[in-house]
Amino acid sequence: MLRKLSAEMIGTFWLVFGGCGSAIFAAHAIGVLGVALAFGLTVVTMAYAIGPISGCHLNPAVTLGLWAGGRVRTLDVVPYIVAQCIGGVIAGAVLFYIASGKPGFDALAGFAANGYEALSPTGYSLHSAMAIEVLLTAFFLFVIMGATDSKLAPAGFAPIAIGLTLTLIHLISIPIDNTSVNPARSLGVALFADPLFMKQLWLFWVGPLVGGVIGALVYRVVRPTA
Amino acid sequence: MLRKLSAEMIGTFWLVFGGCGSAIFAAHAIGVLGVALAFGLTVVTMAYAIGPISGCHLNPAVTLGLWAGGRVRTLDVVPYIVAQCIGGVIAGAVLFYIASGKPGFDALAGFAANGYEALSPTGYSLHSAMAIEVLLTAFFLFVIMGATDSKLAPAGFAPIAIGLTLTLIHLISIPIDNTSVNPARSLGVALFADPLFMKQLWLFWVGPLVGGVIGALVYRVVRPTA
Amino acid sequence: MLRKLSAEMIGTFWLVFGGCGSAIFAAHAIGVLGVALAFGLTVVTMAYAIGPISGCHLNPAVTLGLWAGGRVRTLDVVPYIVAQCIGGVIAGAVLFYIASGKPGFDALAGFAANGYEALSPTGYSLHSAMAIEVLLTAFFLFVIMGATDSKLAPAGFAPIAIGLTLTLIHLISIPIDNTSVNPARSLGVALFADPLFMKQLWLFWVGPLVGGVIGALVYRVVRPTA
Amino acid sequence: MLRKLSAEMIGTFWLVFGGCGSAIFAAHAIGVLGVALAFGLTVVTMAYAIGPISGCHLNPAVTLGLWAGGRVRTLDVVPYIVAQCIGGVIAGAVLFYIASGKPGFDALAGFAANGYEALSPTGYSLHSAMAIEVLLTAFFLFVIMGATDSKLAPAGFAPIAIGLTLTLIHLISIPIDNTSVNPARSLGVALFADPLFMKQLWLFWVGPLVGGVIGALVYRVVRPTA
Repeated sequence: MLRKLSAEMIGTFWLVFGGCGSAIFAAHAIGVLGVALAFGLTVVTMAYAIGPISGCHLNPAVTLGLWAGGRVRTLDVVPYIVAQCIGGVIAGAVLFYIASGKPGFDALAGFAANGYEALSPTGYSLHSAMAIEVLLTAFFLFVIMGATDSKLAPAGFAPIAIGLTLTLIHLISIPIDNTSVNPARSLGVALFADPLFMKQLWLFWVGPLVGGVIGALVYRVVRPTA
Repeated sequence: MLRKLSAEMIGTFWLVFGGCGSAIFAAHAIGVLGVALAFGLTVVTMAYAIGPISGCHLNPAVTLGLWAGGRVRTLDVVPYIVAQCIGGVIAGAVLFYIASGKPGFDALAGFAANGYEALSPTGYSLHSAMAIEVLLTAFFLFVIMGATDSKLAPAGFAPIAIGLTLTLIHLISIPIDNTSVNPARSLGVALFADPLFMKQLWLFWVGPLVGGVIGALVYRVVRPTA
Repeated sequence: MLRKLSAEMIGTFWLVFGGCGSAIFAAHAIGVLGVALAFGLTVVTMAYAIGPISGCHLNPAVTLGLWAGGRVRTLDVVPYIVAQCIGGVIAGAVLFYIASGKPGFDALAGFAANGYEALSPTGYSLHSAMAIEVLLTAFFLFVIMGATDSKLAPAGFAPIAIGLTLTLIHLISIPIDNTSVNPARSLGVALFADPLFMKQLWLFWVGPLVGGVIGALVYRVVRPTA
Repeated sequence: MLRKLSAEMIGTFWLVFGGCGSAIFAAHAIGVLGVALAFGLTVVTMAYAIGPISGCHLNPAVTLGLWAGGRVRTLDVVPYIVAQCIGGVIAGAVLFYIASGKPGFDALAGFAANGYEALSPTGYSLHSAMAIEVLLTAFFLFVIMGATDSKLAPAGFAPIAIGLTLTLIHLISIPIDNTSVNPARSLGVALFADPLFMKQLWLFWVGPLVGGVIGALVYRVVRPTA
């Protein structure tokens, strides 16, 4: 179990460091498309590395969703989520350290945190942000449930399917709320950004967790049982 | 059968919501390249999730083409197409709801709908639009027939081949007519855009359906029979 | 054999129509990165469709290189190359027809043809163009020989490896000479562009054909024989 | 063994020529995103070609890291690294030759070399550069160890996982120090750029080599032993 939790912590570090790091260090050069690709590739790459060890959730909404979908033991849920949050926060701290090496760096200006209304990249409302987080996380879990369905899906392709879903999700929603679908990712950087972001953090826990459970349950309904 | 139709409805929702959503919310940031990638990834990701359930057509032209290619039962054609259209229209409605959360949003300005002449993104004629829709949908079905050929193609790779074909198709033709090759996608957003787009919708049913049948039949001719 | 030649003709049409089409219709919107991706995806997608039928060469330099590498029968070389050239020229003609549907279109302005010196996109010399064509086609064939090595390579991945090599090749060399590595692609569009491009066409036959043979022979030397 | 060393030399040539070449010839057109993609694709493509021959390290930090991880024989380490450096330097020379074919070319302006402080693309400090090189190379080796774990990982996908990790690494860190994680890549171009780059070369040997060893050892700790 300690190995699994270590893997989740390392993997979530990679997701937050790689995804948010591409935004913090390079968004001016690679654009939203590059950041969307980076987030997806953190999952593609890590899933091939630790998928066989911990399942490579890297995301409390994934862990809770897979639990609702009957794929995760109840006892594992809380330890997984704690490990993911630790990894995410450490990633935020290391990002802060490296970013500080550039003269003029100011974490308050955003630090890749998620937000709505005044903190939305292009001014979307709370309702839009909540709707998109629930909806996209639901589809995220729907794809994860299907792509890892050991009786139906082809073996070996799940990391590609799941990672590219995360890229797609970012292509759709970065302009809305900087895209969460992952409470650990939101937490990891919000701690270091303007305190206003922490006040909006609740939405990026509620939305993804609710959406993840819905998506997994919908998959169970649609899936053939025989 | 109800499971299959539910899967097609959910999947087509994903294609229209993800593809057109990336255009509506993010085209200013991710460009035509990002939108092309998003459309393709909706298919890559959903095909790994529901491919084993319904075949993951998500497109009336695919269903009709695969029927012409001998891969779909005649009785399934109409229910599949109806489910796809329902999914596409719901996606259009949800996109409209979320997009309304941004002050100044105006669906009449386009809403990712398909068009030619005055409604073409860069002014292409009706003849160019019809030619490109027939041709690209024909190649789309040609690749689908080949990549899912259970006796010839390697297993597991079809979602990648088919989804990336959709990306390629968008890279070629977004500037011509915003790219359809999928009547359900065209219907789903045209309902919410300027009424002028509905007057041109016929082309994005006729072109893809005709092209799809041609592509599947050509594959049957070229394929070795032994 | 007729099926194989039809497949090569259709496939080369797709490569030239998709790759050059993305440049002609959409380069202003998707950039060099998008065009590079489009060229690669023509091969990824078509190789899953017709790889099991004809081998999906789509390129005289590939056919000649694979012949030098001992993978193609001598009798097949000329018919394959003829079929590829026919497919490429038809693609050029269809591109010309569709592009003509936009007011102000002028094929003389380039039409995605290959060139050096005054016709190089950014002014590279004849020597640079020849060096890059020989070198890149050599690596193209080296990868093709390796990725399709039935005793060494994992099954099913060759289309991805080979198509992405073509994307990489374009990322490197579009600014040098618009990237050929494929005489049929160069021929297909040069016929419709400014006649000056036809005068430079020889380089885009000699360079790729020589490079392709070299790359395949180098692979045979490096490959373990046991 | 000579075959393996030849493969490593050819492969490292490809990595440096393709990755740095895309930057030198095309960065103005494809941007940082295109260069990041190009570096990753050199590995994806070459790994399918020579993975079964030499393991396709193409990087002294990979060879040393895999040695620390127990995957490479001690006697192979130095010959592999020498072959990689030879390949990298030849690539630098050929890049210099081809780039010279464009009037106004000036290698001193950068030539895709790695640097920090005054030579950092956007002004990052020595500490930031060292931290990012150690960290990213550690994750690079962590993923390589996992994705090539013959008892745990699915077969055939390692080139995709590893190559896309290199793309992700570049998406994060090109603005910091132009991204090394590979001493042979740094050496190959630094020789031809402004002599100031050679004075900073040490960091791009120390950082990646230390990081690579750490990443491989961490994987050994996390991996289940049974």
